[in-house]
Amino acid sequence: MARSDRRLTQLPLTLRRLDAPPLQQQIVEQIRQLVAKGILLPGTRVPSTRALAEQLGVARNTTTIAYELLVSEGLLEVRSSAGTVVSEALPEVLASAPLASSRPGSERASSAPPALRTMHQAMRLYERGRPLPFDFRVGQVDESLLPLGPLRAAARRNLEASVALLGRYGDPAGLPVLRAAIADHLRRTRGVRCAVEQIVIVAGAQEGLNLIARLLVRQGSEVVVENPCYEGAAAVFTSHGARLVPARVDERGLLPDELSGVRASLAYVTPSHQFPLGFTLSLTRRLALLDWAAESRAYVIEDDYDSDFRYDGAPLLALSALDTRGSVIYLGTFSKSLGAGLRLGYAVFPEALAPAAVAAKSVMNNGHPAFDQLLVAGLLESGSFEHHLRRLRREYRLRRDCLVHALERHFGPSRVDGGEGGMHVAWHVPEWLPPAPALVEHARQRGVGVYSLERAPVHYVAHAWGSGAPRSWLQGPTSSEHREGLDPLAQRLLLFGYPCLSPPRIQSALAALASDLPARPSS
Amino acid sequence: MARSDRRLTQLPLTLRRLDAPPLQQQIVEQIRQLVAKGILLPGTRVPSTRALAEQLGVARNTTTIAYELLVSEGLLEVRSSAGTVVSEALPEVLASAPLASSRPGSERASSAPPALRTMHQAMRLYERGRPLPFDFRVGQVDESLLPLGPLRAAARRNLEASVALLGRYGDPAGLPVLRAAIADHLRRTRGVRCAVEQIVIVAGAQEGLNLIARLLVRQGSEVVVENPCYEGAAAVFTSHGARLVPARVDERGLLPDELSGVRASLAYVTPSHQFPLGFTLSLTRRLALLDWAAESRAYVIEDDYDSDFRYDGAPLLALSALDTRGSVIYLGTFSKSLGAGLRLGYAVFPEALAPAAVAAKSVMNNGHPAFDQLLVAGLLESGSFEHHLRRLRREYRLRRDCLVHALERHFGPSRVDGGEGGMHVAWHVPEWLPPAPALVEHARQRGVGVYSLERAPVHYVAHAWGSGAPRSWLQGPTSSEHREGLDPLAQRLLLFGYPCLSPPRIQSALAALASDLPARPSS
Repeated sequence: MARSDRRLTQLPLTLRRLDAPPLQQQIVEQIRQLVAKGILLPGTRVPSTRALAEQLGVARNTTTIAYELLVSEGLLEVRSSAGTVVSEALPEVLASAPLASSRPGSERASSAPPALRTMHQAMRLYERGRPLPFDFRVGQVDESLLPLGPLRAAARRNLEASVALLGRYGDPAGLPVLRAAIADHLRRTRGVRCAVEQIVIVAGAQEGLNLIARLLVRQGSEVVVENPCYEGAAAVFTSHGARLVPARVDERGLLPDELSGVRASLAYVTPSHQFPLGFTLSLTRRLALLDWAAESRAYVIEDDYDSDFRYDGAPLLALSALDTRGSVIYLGTFSKSLGAGLRLGYAVFPEALAPAAVAAKSVMNNGHPAFDQLLVAGLLESGSFEHHLRRLRREYRLRRDCLVHALERHFGPSRVDGGEGGMHVAWHVPEWLPPAPALVEHARQRGVGVYSLERAPVHYVAHAWGSGAPRSWLQGPTSSEHREGLDPLAQRLLLFGYPCLSPPRIQSALAALASDLPARPSS
Repeated sequence: MARSDRRLTQLPLTLRRLDAPPLQQQIVEQIRQLVAKGILLPGTRVPSTRALAEQLGVARNTTTIAYELLVSEGLLEVRSSAGTVVSEALPEVLASAPLASSRPGSERASSAPPALRTMHQAMRLYERGRPLPFDFRVGQVDESLLPLGPLRAAARRNLEASVALLGRYGDPAGLPVLRAAIADHLRRTRGVRCAVEQIVIVAGAQEGLNLIARLLVRQGSEVVVENPCYEGAAAVFTSHGARLVPARVDERGLLPDELSGVRASLAYVTPSHQFPLGFTLSLTRRLALLDWAAESRAYVIEDDYDSDFRYDGAPLLALSALDTRGSVIYLGTFSKSLGAGLRLGYAVFPEALAPAAVAAKSVMNNGHPAFDQLLVAGLLESGSFEHHLRRLRREYRLRRDCLVHALERHFGPSRVDGGEGGMHVAWHVPEWLPPAPALVEHARQRGVGVYSLERAPVHYVAHAWGSGAPRSWLQGPTSSEHREGLDPLAQRLLLFGYPCLSPPRIQSALAALASDLPARPSS
């Protein structure tokens, strides 16, 4: 049978209406099963959303959203000619295939900066791997904990209002009502005092980084990054021509000595919860970093990506709250609290830089969609957002405890970093266990997603990891040589993003991970 | 009385409930009046939206949105400390004041590229001028013609679905369901055939331009632009370091001779309705432009900004539809049909360039908000969008006819360019009338907004306009010298964006514009 003949007008699905998960979720799971079992083969055309909705007696929207979710996972593909089909390249295949195959004869295509390609691959791989039953994906929220009720209420309330804002260009920096609500939130929760004029609404922290890079990074600019650091940040800077200056971190965060003599124009740090190692930058080092910035006339980006979640001890004041000399650009996001699909974050610029930042935003895309801004403003103003954060904090703390206990139960006492806050911990793999990359594979075969630094969205500054005699992984670079496979961090650390799994699922996941591993030596 | 004492707990507003405009509109208009009459003075703190809602017995949302609209016009300002106040710098003052005052001692701020500042000022001035009773603002839609019913219906339908998409990152290129609907729309209305994979959803055409510039413009790259051209495009290219190569246009669009010998990597054109002159690029010249692009290995951006509106004759096939060699990047927007506050547009890339474009979009902001994409996908799929466009075309055509007749009635026979389609015309000011910039002032004093090229968002390539003996304004540059005030286009052309005014208001506006002008010489 030719591939193009494989068309289905119906799918063998059975939906339960009572005491059952949402219909779209049932559809998604059953189609996943059909693909996993080889009943739906690659290239097969599935029924249209309309036809499937009729078959099942559900709203068209239910099937549309189910297909969207499957497309976002890489299981289905939309082809304009042939409708929706089961992907020829199923996710696992996708993950090892190059995404940007350069066509012969299309020399124009090579004009894209290589950094963009790398970035693209990294992000796509990270987001589109085959869905695993138990996935400790770093940064992933639990969709069942999103505040659907308040979001729906805010959306309904705002519908009339936002429609009235559709007709015109708004302030490129964002709706003043949202920026005022964010200023208020930052003052109360992070000690950051800023005027509405200093805030620019951006489409997620990624756009914030890009905006800053457009302002402050030139070809050849030096940018200090923590080593290791978030791939998305490193990719933005290098795509603008930056030379990265990696700086070592230890348990108290970035080592100030690493900055002495460095003449960079910009430093990118994650003081609340170092990404990916989970450390908190100490107060002394915060002050040292600010001194360095003032002396070198550099700006510091404080990426406060998951500071909404602090479980133990009082949070340190934000770096931005300590800054009296206009050196810090603060980046915040709603991706971790309201979901990444919202694409909404904000940057707080020093007064002197704010007008240029608004200019850059206006050149970039002339502002953020009105609807989404009103939605979030509504949640902030009504108090629903605070309430939601409190609930998430309680729930995430339970999940962290569950994970840490399960690690100890299965693997004995071991070191876990970064548990005081945030959305992931870094587990130091005990020496009697296989190295982290092997454990990632072992886990994956058992349906569990865990991440070594090699598989997580982490940027290596290759030359910064030393060769030669084994050293403590905190000792950092002493040589510019690099030998594959010697990186102690990549070999001995596993990252667990725990907020996306319920405690019972965390327990099941750890049991699966622990199966068929060498026995723990009796101590 | 000190300024900080000027706080009002109530505002003297009276709302009509029956047979009246929407409540928020009444509030906006009455506050405008209070400010215009000097009853509300600059710096006065107005009641909170909550207090005003209570006073008037309306929903909080109604007052919030009214304040948002007033803030967007520059009449009110949100200050985090003092709440909402009447702007100290009222719009007319704003329009002449520099926006980015550089503070002494803040040397870091100077790192912003000058092009960004210029752009910012241009956009802000254009958007935030004092609201005029009769404003022929170019590109402005009539808010009362937005498809509020279908938008509301689509938003309600999509609420559940989009909430389910909030929890995760989507495809950085956009939701496949929206991209498929756009591919279908383009095939039917513009003859453009493309795969879903070639389409990237962007936050308006401005982001599309920025995305393309990031891929294809380097420091010193040459970019061909029409002369004159859209300021927003020119600003993006120069902000990425481009050297603009201005090319003359005549009634059949860009002159192909202007391209001979030019080795640019990119050309930016508006073939359907040249911005701002309104001409349509002829078929012969379209083919010549494509030949040039193929020979020079250059890309051509086809900005099809208002091609949804064609009133007379069949539209020419899009440049993109004629392109067989992968040279054209097509840019479309929903800003003209659904409103600029939606911030949604799309770019169609040649196959070979698409993967790099998706990579650039993922570095830039990792994708567009899910809600807005579902909203537009719903309108496109249901047919509501087509229906809405047909309605707009009928209505805009009436308004164009009304404007052209009114111009003739008041000023006799005169030349009007660009009326076959689009959202503005260019009127050649008869010789017995004052020059265009003087007419702009004359009109403004009578409450009418019209735009000479000096006041519209049009980029001048200064050295391209000749000095010396008067020439036809279509004759274009012959010398690299420039003398202020000699530009014949700026002196003799006025732009009218007519879709935003109803026919009776167009007639009133023209009557006001025509008053107190020199009498027409009897011919």
